[in-house]
Amino acid sequence: MDQILAQRMSGVPRSFIREILKVSLDPTIISFAGGLPNAAYFPVGELEAAAAKVFARQGATALQYGRTEGDEELRQWIARRYRDKKGLEVDVDHILITNGSQQGLDLLGKVLLDSGDGVLIEEPGYLGAIQSLSLFQPRFLPVALNDDGLHIPSLCKTLAGASAKLLYAVPSFQNPSGVSYSDDNRRRVAELAREHRFVVVEDDPYGELRFAGHEAKSFAHYLPESTVLLGSFSKVVAPGFRLGWLVAPSWLHDRLIVAKQAADLHTSSFTQRVMATFLADNDLDSHIARIIEAYGRQCRAMEDALQRHFPKEITFTKPEGGMFLWGRLPEGMDAMELFNKAVGEKVVFVPGNPFYTASGATSTMRFSFSCVDGPIIDEGVQRLARALGKFNAAFS
Amino acid sequence: MDQILAQRMSGVPRSFIREILKVSLDPTIISFAGGLPNAAYFPVGELEAAAAKVFARQGATALQYGRTEGDEELRQWIARRYRDKKGLEVDVDHILITNGSQQGLDLLGKVLLDSGDGVLIEEPGYLGAIQSLSLFQPRFLPVALNDDGLHIPSLCKTLAGASAKLLYAVPSFQNPSGVSYSDDNRRRVAELAREHRFVVVEDDPYGELRFAGHEAKSFAHYLPESTVLLGSFSKVVAPGFRLGWLVAPSWLHDRLIVAKQAADLHTSSFTQRVMATFLADNDLDSHIARIIEAYGRQCRAMEDALQRHFPKEITFTKPEGGMFLWGRLPEGMDAMELFNKAVGEKVVFVPGNPFYTASGATSTMRFSFSCVDGPIIDEGVQRLARALGKFNAAFS
Repeated sequence: MDQILAQRMSGVPRSFIREILKVSLDPTIISFAGGLPNAAYFPVGELEAAAAKVFARQGATALQYGRTEGDEELRQWIARRYRDKKGLEVDVDHILITNGSQQGLDLLGKVLLDSGDGVLIEEPGYLGAIQSLSLFQPRFLPVALNDDGLHIPSLCKTLAGASAKLLYAVPSFQNPSGVSYSDDNRRRVAELAREHRFVVVEDDPYGELRFAGHEAKSFAHYLPESTVLLGSFSKVVAPGFRLGWLVAPSWLHDRLIVAKQAADLHTSSFTQRVMATFLADNDLDSHIARIIEAYGRQCRAMEDALQRHFPKEITFTKPEGGMFLWGRLPEGMDAMELFNKAVGEKVVFVPGNPFYTASGATSTMRFSFSCVDGPIIDEGVQRLARALGKFNAAFS
Repeated sequence: MDQILAQRMSGVPRSFIREILKVSLDPTIISFAGGLPNAAYFPVGELEAAAAKVFARQGATALQYGRTEGDEELRQWIARRYRDKKGLEVDVDHILITNGSQQGLDLLGKVLLDSGDGVLIEEPGYLGAIQSLSLFQPRFLPVALNDDGLHIPSLCKTLAGASAKLLYAVPSFQNPSGVSYSDDNRRRVAELAREHRFVVVEDDPYGELRFAGHEAKSFAHYLPESTVLLGSFSKVVAPGFRLGWLVAPSWLHDRLIVAKQAADLHTSSFTQRVMATFLADNDLDSHIARIIEAYGRQCRAMEDALQRHFPKEITFTKPEGGMFLWGRLPEGMDAMELFNKAVGEKVVFVPGNPFYTASGATSTMRFSFSCVDGPIIDEGVQRLARALGKFNAAFS
């Protein structure tokens, strides 16, 4: 009966990463492919204590249906965090708790996108956003990423030829590239957003995981009435609770609540209560400091290993935080072919192709350093170097 | 900037029930309006023990990202339950865990519905389904509900004039009416589904809450390749975990997984693990028996009170399970006006209007008996009778 499927399903890419994860299940394989946070730094004991407290104090109340907007205490914590960390005054009533920030994308697509609407997207861009927004059949308008943010001439050229409803951006430690937008770049993008009247969706799951450099200003500083902030507890606490949030200006927020209610009524009241209790009873900053120390060390180990074992023709970004770095093979070399050779050497990464809405850019690749420690990183990069050698004798 | 909103948002009804819930916060008001399960029967201690066990045994693993399909053990439990309780052989690989069955509706809308597609819906129908499917801009084709299921001549007539992609049905203890489809009615609807090639979405959140009569066969017995089953733990365990599921034939299932991944990657791995542990360590049937005993008692109390205090011109359905019964005022009386009078007497119910996709049927109303015990029910019905009296002296 599959002829009755909706048209919107025809354009949705399958997740190649899902396929890679199956390969990664082999314990002899070293994986730089996953996008997972390191489970060694999940605050298991603290969350256990918080859950026990919620059962003891709230009991059945925490297990009943809740408000679509989300837990009041949790939203207040998020508002305080924006004020303390980013100097942003966020109205608690403009915060909506979602099932990870991924759901924020789905809700925004529903509320904002008609078929054919222009969506500016980073090239390379976050796979989950491409997949999620594809369902609303937009016209993707890819804009190249530089080491300091969006390539402004490309953005101007794109906007001269097409109108856009929104820009989806991960301006800090972007997935997949690890790149961060500079203050200057943000300011110029914001000017164009104001001029061309598009919404900036600032997805910031990694922003707190900074191990070098300084933080640039949120787009919400420049565009308070047309920025949507997406946030997540997945990378700083744990992803298994599926807790994220969005902050939207009031003209948009009411509609997002209707869309959230239609989607699943509300996010788990229980996990929200546990998270709020965990955050009230623990110092998140000192917890995050441990993650940052580990990821920073692992990132340096990966950069060192790549410098030691890889030919200098292969270049990499220099992330100041987050979980990823991004490599570029010399022109004409295909990262997918390298991937196939790498599997034979028992090491995997993600070839760049799925991160592009327009295909053809196949010489790039994403490496994750979040879940591998120094010696494993070195061994994995050596295996990759061997794969490179087999792939192209010129580099051996 | 709200001129940039997507067209699909214009047709989505606001939830009137949400508004009523605000009124219900006044503790002096007796509410027959809510659709909440009774929190007194949530297995708080058992879930607490299950959560502690998950932390102790699985630790960080239960807090990591998980598979889009959902927890393997939980899906196996669901498959066994279908076999044991309904005699249905359900492939574990066709089960997808969702955030309550509400999310199943959103995913089905995404995967099946193009703008203008026909959707057969019960009249009156479940508000959450109307709201959720509205986002995909279908053409709703309402079919009247009788005391034994869909009104077959109406269904035939509708199908003679329009094509339908799916029927959304709650065939056991329907929300809002409390009506159940007979075996004969299901067979005839299934014949029409086969002939006219539409999918039957059988939503069954209340089916296990039977306090009278016998269970009729699932549509999946008649239409194994074109029935989608929606299920939920919200009414038999607790809603705050937001755990439901759908079972779809293979031609549909793969696409639903893509849609689920795009929507929020997966449902909380932690709450799924806790639920699977709770179900493994406890006898759900003896837990459900307590809920059934209470709801059955409360339903009878409501029926008795209505018979005692209400004029016989106002008729009610006779549910054999679930949480709701449905009243019909004499022709010309407006349930919304009665509602306004009832608020003055400090008692609320849900006027029927929001349960219809075509407006105008305003003489009906939903009463919930799940969260009120005998004496409160009697007092509430007496207050309602006073409101009726003020509303129309002929009935005083």
